[in-house]
Formats: sequence, C-alpha cells, structure tokens
Amino acid sequence: MTTAAATPEPVWRSDVGVELVRASASDADVVTAARVSTAGERAEEQRADDPAAHAGLIRFLLRNRHGTPFEHNSMTFLVTAPIFVFREFQRHRTGWSYNEESGRYRELAPVFYVPADDRDLVQVGKAGAYTFEPGTDEQRRVVAEQTRRACEGAHAAYRAMLGAGVAREVARGVLPVATFSSMYATCNARSLMAFLSLRTRHDEAAFPSYPQREIAMVAEQMEEHFARLMPLTHAAFLQARRVGP
Amino acid sequence: MTTAAATPEPVWRSDVGVELVRASASDADVVTAARVSTAGERAEEQRADDPAAHAGLIRFLLRNRHGTPFEHNSMTFLVTAPIFVFREFQRHRTGWSYNEESGRYRELAPVFYVPADDRDLVQVGKAGAYTFEPGTDEQRRVVAEQTRRACEGAHAAYRAMLGAGVAREVARGVLPVATFSSMYATCNARSLMAFLSLRTRHDEAAFPSYPQREIAMVAEQMEEHFARLMPLTHAAFLQARRVGP
Amino acid sequence: MTTAAATPEPVWRSDVGVELVRASASDADVVTAARVSTAGERAEEQRADDPAAHAGLIRFLLRNRHGTPFEHNSMTFLVTAPIFVFREFQRHRTGWSYNEESGRYRELAPVFYVPADDRDLVQVGKAGAYTFEPGTDEQRRVVAEQTRRACEGAHAAYRAMLGAGVAREVARGVLPVATFSSMYATCNARSLMAFLSLRTRHDEAAFPSYPQREIAMVAEQMEEHFARLMPLTHAAFLQARRVGP
Amino acid sequence: MTTAAATPEPVWRSDVGVELVRASASDADVVTAARVSTAGERAEEQRADDPAAHAGLIRFLLRNRHGTPFEHNSMTFLVTAPIFVFREFQRHRTGWSYNEESGRYRELAPVFYVPADDRDLVQVGKAGAYTFEPGTDEQRRVVAEQTRRACEGAHAAYRAMLGAGVAREVARGVLPVATFSSMYATCNARSLMAFLSLRTRHDEAAFPSYPQREIAMVAEQMEEHFARLMPLTHAAFLQARRVGP
Repeated sequence: MTTAAATPEPVWRSDVGVELVRASASDADVVTAARVSTAGERAEEQRADDPAAHAGLIRFLLRNRHGTPFEHNSMTFLVTAPIFVFREFQRHRTGWSYNEESGRYRELAPVFYVPADDRDLVQVGKAGAYTFEPGTDEQRRVVAEQTRRACEGAHAAYRAMLGAGVAREVARGVLPVATFSSMYATCNARSLMAFLSLRTRHDEAAFPSYPQREIAMVAEQMEEHFARLMPLTHAAFLQARRVGP
Repeated sequence: MTTAAATPEPVWRSDVGVELVRASASDADVVTAARVSTAGERAEEQRADDPAAHAGLIRFLLRNRHGTPFEHNSMTFLVTAPIFVFREFQRHRTGWSYNEESGRYRELAPVFYVPADDRDLVQVGKAGAYTFEPGTDEQRRVVAEQTRRACEGAHAAYRAMLGAGVAREVARGVLPVATFSSMYATCNARSLMAFLSLRTRHDEAAFPSYPQREIAMVAEQMEEHFARLMPLTHAAFLQARRVGP
Repeated sequence: MTTAAATPEPVWRSDVGVELVRASASDADVVTAARVSTAGERAEEQRADDPAAHAGLIRFLLRNRHGTPFEHNSMTFLVTAPIFVFREFQRHRTGWSYNEESGRYRELAPVFYVPADDRDLVQVGKAGAYTFEPGTDEQRRVVAEQTRRACEGAHAAYRAMLGAGVAREVARGVLPVATFSSMYATCNARSLMAFLSLRTRHDEAAFPSYPQREIAMVAEQMEEHFARLMPLTHAAFLQARRVGP
Repeated sequence: MTTAAATPEPVWRSDVGVELVRASASDADVVTAARVSTAGERAEEQRADDPAAHAGLIRFLLRNRHGTPFEHNSMTFLVTAPIFVFREFQRHRTGWSYNEESGRYRELAPVFYVPADDRDLVQVGKAGAYTFEPGTDEQRRVVAEQTRRACEGAHAAYRAMLGAGVAREVARGVLPVATFSSMYATCNARSLMAFLSLRTRHDEAAFPSYPQREIAMVAEQMEEHFARLMPLTHAAFLQARRVGP
C-alpha cells in the first residue's frame, strides 16, 4: 500500500512538540477535593472564597504530601518527539495514559531528530555525577553527518522492504530511535508533577535530577501549560523545591 | 469543639447519592485517541467525520480490548453512601482517584443507612451461587428496629466521647459502617467500565457479577451519567455484554 | 446458618497484628535490578561482590529517587486490625494488593478495638497542626465505657438480625468501624516505603506525617519485618530521612 | 571511554530470551489469599487440603473475575529482545515493574534482530483483520539484506560518534529499534494473564488478539514458566479461554 508513492524526503528536526489538546484542570478543583475531607458533601458550596485562602491550602497540601486532591483533574497532550524520548516517557506508569502512533498500522514518516547547535554533546565525569559540555565544532560535524547518513540509510532500507511488499511491522525494525513519533498522553496534576520532578533539571530542586536534554525539552513545554492552567499549584510546586505531593 | 452544639437528630436514608461534578468525556475523544495510532499527529484533523464511523470504530476497539483510547477522558463524581459501600468502592485502584470525608478532621453527621422496603433481606443458596429473596414483614421489622437502635446507641456513645473532650479519631471507632460518608471519585471511561462490570448485576452480562445491592445503586447512577456523556461508548459496552476493554 | 451457635462473647483488643506470610525480598535483588541498566543481561553475574558496594549503590539509588530497582521483590503480610485502620490502609493503590475478610461471605467475629492505656486521647491545636495529649482518667473511663457499650449493642443487634434469618451483608451495617478484620496485603519495597513515609510518625522525617496512632502501630510492625529482610535498603531509607525513592 | 576497544562485530539473532530469575508463586497462595475472605486470619490453617478443591476454587475465582487473589505472588524475568518488542511490552503499566538496560549509561552492543526463515513477512487484508503469509524467497532476501545493511550502517555511525568523544545518549539516536536490549520485568499472576491475553495468539481465545510475532515469542516463553509454577491457575486460564480474572 506504500509502493505507489514517491519516496518522501527525510525531514530533520531539532525541536519537540507539545500541544495541549484538552484540559479540565484548575486550582479550585484541588481546593474543593481537599475540602471533601473536612466539609463532606458541602465541599462544593465553599468554592467561591478568596484566592489567598486557596493558595495557602494548596501549599499546605503539597508540602505535607497530601497527594490525592491533585488527582481530580485531567490534561491531554499531543506530544511529538523522537522514539528515544517516548521510551523514557512511557516508563511513567501511574496516572498516565498513552496512545502512540503505530509502526504496525501505518508507514512511519522519515522525520528524524538531529541535535541543535546548542545541545551539549560531551559527557564528563563518572556515572551518577555527569556534567555536559558543548563539544567541539568537529564533534558537532561528526554528529550531524553520521546521524544524517545513518537515518537516510535506514529509511532507504525501510522503503526498499515496503516496496518489496514486506509488512510494515517487519520493515520498521531498521528505523532508528531518532525517528519521530507522536502520542496522546493524559495525566493529572499529581502524576505530572512526579514526571516534572524527574524529567526537568533545576539546580534548586530538593532532589536533583539529570534527565536527558530531549525529554526535558518536552517536560518544559508541559510545565508551561501546567503553570498556566493551575498557577497556584505550580507556584506551590516551585516553593516545595519541585517535590510533588 | 463540638460540645457546644445540641446533639443532632439521627437521619435515616435508604438511598445513595451520585452527582456528576465535572466531566471532560466524549465519544469523539475516544476516536481521536485511537486515530493517533493510524494517523499520528494528524489524528485531530479527522475529528469531524460521520457518527456512524465513530460508532463502528468504538465498537471495534471495545470488542478487541484496545483499552487505552478509552482513558483520555475524565469524570468526577460526588458520591454519598454508607461506609460499607465505600469500603468496596475503594478497592478499585487502577484509574481511580478518591478524596473522602474524614472522621479525623470533622465530626461525622448522624446519617445512617436503613434498607428500603424493596431491598431483599434474605440470602438463599451457597457461597458463589446466592440468590436473594424479599424476606418477611417480621424480618423487615427486625432489621429496621435493630438498625435504628444500634445506630442511635453508637451515635450517643460518639457524642458522649466528643462531649468529654475525646479526639474525633478515637470516638469515631463506635460508628457503624452504615454511617453515610461522601467522596470525590474521579475515573475515566475504561476504569469506569471495569467498575460497572463488577458492581452492577445484569443477566445478559458475559461475566455475571453479584454485587451487594447498595453499591449497585451507586453504580447504576454512575452508569446513567456515563451513558449520557458517551452514548456510543456505552452502547458498545452493552453490545459487548458488559465486558470492558 | 449462624442461628444455632451460642452468641460468642465480645473480645476486646488494644493491639494490632502483623505477620509476614511470605517474602521474596533482599538487598541483593535491588542491586541486580539496578545493574541491568549498566550491565544488561550480565547483571546477574555481578551479584557476588562486596556488601559495602551494595550499600553505596542502594543509598545512591534511593537518594536520587531511582525507584524501579526497589520494585522487583515481594512481601505478603497478614494484617489484623480494626476496620478504621483498613479504611486508611486501602487508600494506598499503587504497588499494593489486598484480600480482606468479607462481611458478605462470613459472620464477623465480635472482636473490637478499645484504646490501650497509653493511647493519647485528646487532640490539641488546629487542623494540620495537632498534637495529642494523654487525657484524664475520666476521659479514659468514658472511652472504655462508651466503646464497650456501643460495640456490645451493635453486636447484639447484628446477632438478632442473623438470628432472624437476615443476610449477613444487611445485618453487618450496624457493626462499628472498631470491629477487627484481617487481610492479606502484598507490596514491594518501593510501595512499602511510600506507605511507611505517610503512616509512621518520626521527628527526623524530611516530610513530617501525622498518621492516626492505630495505623502507625501496623506500619511499625511492617517496618521491623522490612528492616530485617532488607537491612541496607532500610538503612538508606532512614538516611534519606524517610523519603522513599 | 569506548574509543580504545576494537569495534565489535555485529551479532544477528532471530530469537528472544526469557529467563525466570526468581519466583514466589504457587497455586496454594491463590487459594489462601481467597480464603481470607471467608476464613479471615485462619486462612493459613486451611492450606493443606486436597488439590481437587484447590483446582475448583481457582477455576471459580478466575471465571467470576475475582482478580485480587491472583496478585499475592511475584515472578521476575530477565527478558532479552529487540527494542521494538520492549516498546510494546512496557505499555503494560498495572502490576508490572521494569528495569531496562540504558543507552545513556552504557555502550549498547551491536546485537540486532533479523527475522528467522519461518517468520511470515507479508501482511494481507485490512486494518483490524490482517492475516500473515510467509512471503517469497525474494522478499526474504530483501529483508535479510536491507536489515543487515541498515543495522551495520547504524552501528558504524554509532561507533564513529563514540570514537569522536560524543556522549552515548546522543550517539544512540541512530540505533535501530531492532537492536537488542535486556530488562528485568516483575509481575504477578494477574498482570501476567492480562499480558498473555493480549500478547499471544490463540484461535480458541474468547477475545482474539493479533500481537506482533516477536512479542508473542516472548509471551510464549513466559507462559511456559507460568504454567510450570502455577499449573492449576494456568489450566483455569485456558479453560476460561484465555480471559484473565
């Protein structure tokens, strides 16, 4: 079913995409859920009070690790990123739902990740205590050249197999983990904060994390959406030095 | 903190309450999530096509147990029911979030469950194959009388301890599991269908279940909300004889 | 089916029971699981090295919140405690499995919880910042007397309904949450540490928690088993000030 | 850190590896866990009764979808398979724990998957109703040749980048999803049956599934271990036409 079309040209990307598809998430929902503990079925009636009280309660809940009030909300993202990012992403099991593009059901487009010029290339130090450095122009040239050559070679092999009538699920074996994929990912504020704790890098974090740069690029975009949807919760998360509830 | 108030009169209820607090849930979301598999990041563009195609795809997904497309949605309920119902409810772990009224943080109101006149009282048969029968007028009288007497006694003891300055968390030990509580419960269509499969009773179910009547009363109300929010998904669930994906 | 037997006498308990039924859990398993990351399928070969290296790696993993290596193990406990403890316990959803005694399938024995003499009875302060004080002899007397009277009344009502042929699931509504129940609970080291963080009270904890005394009594016994089975992991947990990975 | 070594020769594999590392799993544990419902803390005492009763109870539990008694056990596998298999595998979130070899922490060995001669190569039919056919000798030749050429090219590019001092996490982008990886995977009988339902293909299954052949190869080996460890549970699973509890 793919043989008739002309071979598409490879596309090179150095960015990732995060689109907020749908959200039902607000700070007020956290407050109401928490008040079920103290007000029972009348929790809803107390919604309309002052923002300062909301901020204080949210900070209290987060700092004391009362996690469940942060779960009664939902955010769905459309994420576009290389497969090696999705491999790390999908290790988050609790409070996450995924639907990803399938290499069995469709021909994958030749969109490949190549590091941008500002992506540090060289790792210094020992396991558990790495730092990264920019690398030389020569190293940058090697990465660009080798990545392009290998991805083009892989794509040509993929197309040759498809052209010979081989099943997509067999042919895709040659595609590199730098190939872009896309997925719907749905989470709640609690599972998102757990993800952000581990997948962003911040010196002020109580528990420092050293995520790979590319998943951090995804996480940073998700965090911007989160901060806009739930500003009080996000502020409390920062104040707690990025420890989720 | 409770001693000043006059002792509240016990309230007797034979019903349960389910209120849909908030939902972000539609059949179209299921379709779009599923199409990420086959259309990648263009899944969203294909949203506006015909309802018949949606119904067919949803039936296909459900029947073939492709569960994840049913997870990218969210429903929050305020449930009011006796503690013995919540004990069963909260055994559902996956895809469920709970915040319940706390007997540590507030004085619990004396609202107690007493079976309605149409609640079958007598269990016939052996473990795993029970049927229920209405019971006699005398049995109904015994239940009403004993339930009321025991609950009133428990409430008096609770109030006496609170009145003496004893902590709520200590005093509440005497309260019966027939005491009403309330909670926020958030789920998605997949986790809800798993719950409905086990907590409703239907002769046409592929896997018959024998839930206690009171949790079925909760489940039935939740199912009505679900059927209204996601009519195609609900229809496919019925067609699959109440086996969730 | 219960009418023939003589009414059993109530039993009063002030303790809880935790028995380790079965465990497949050792520090070496954590080390081997972690080494899959760095040694792949040869991880197993490296098992036999020195304990000091194990301790260091486990501390590193825990402190840096690498949680998954702590999941490849299993502990099954038989817990005997009042229903109000189980209500809190079963809110732990991730990494926990439960099978509890059923008030639908069997007649519940009249075993009730009454606070021991050293259980603090009086709560001082405001929500979120309570402290507890012992209480007076008079308060202790009120608790003992009211608890006993209410539980005996409830049990008499329960037996009266059973004696009249009413189903167990209907009759049990009157039983207080101080009634003892029992359950199998299976977890792994990661889910257990999350539980211990929240359900024990320690001044040196990085995130202080204020569990109800009775669930802390259960948690403390579980922690002793855990410390014996996985001493290096437990030591690392203490060193991390009771923050789980 | 990898530059000194001579470039390793690619290794071609057409099989997958499943080793049972550790198990604490028996049919008797299922029976005991279930009996907590009916016997409370005396469940353990009833262990030693006859195998026929065990088989009957296990069948009853499984058929009636009483799932939790199948969770109080643990099996840890060391799985060696191509990355495209792990991508599908790790979508199983509930009741599964994973630790996988890391392309960030170590240089990945050049071991690549190439389909065996008996692997069907051609997909016939439309989405949702595919069948597979062997394919021609020419197609088999194209697959072997293109796969080898692309994987060798990818590995040469990977080595060239490492040789230039580029970080492993950057260089690995070119590696194909046919590259072998290894992981520890821990599950229980319930989560394993859910996996087997979806990841094996059997005509007699109540809900037919169409997994990719390579993950089915992994699942079949896991099922053999499961059948040996828990023969009554496995037999009940087959009798229920491969629907897990």
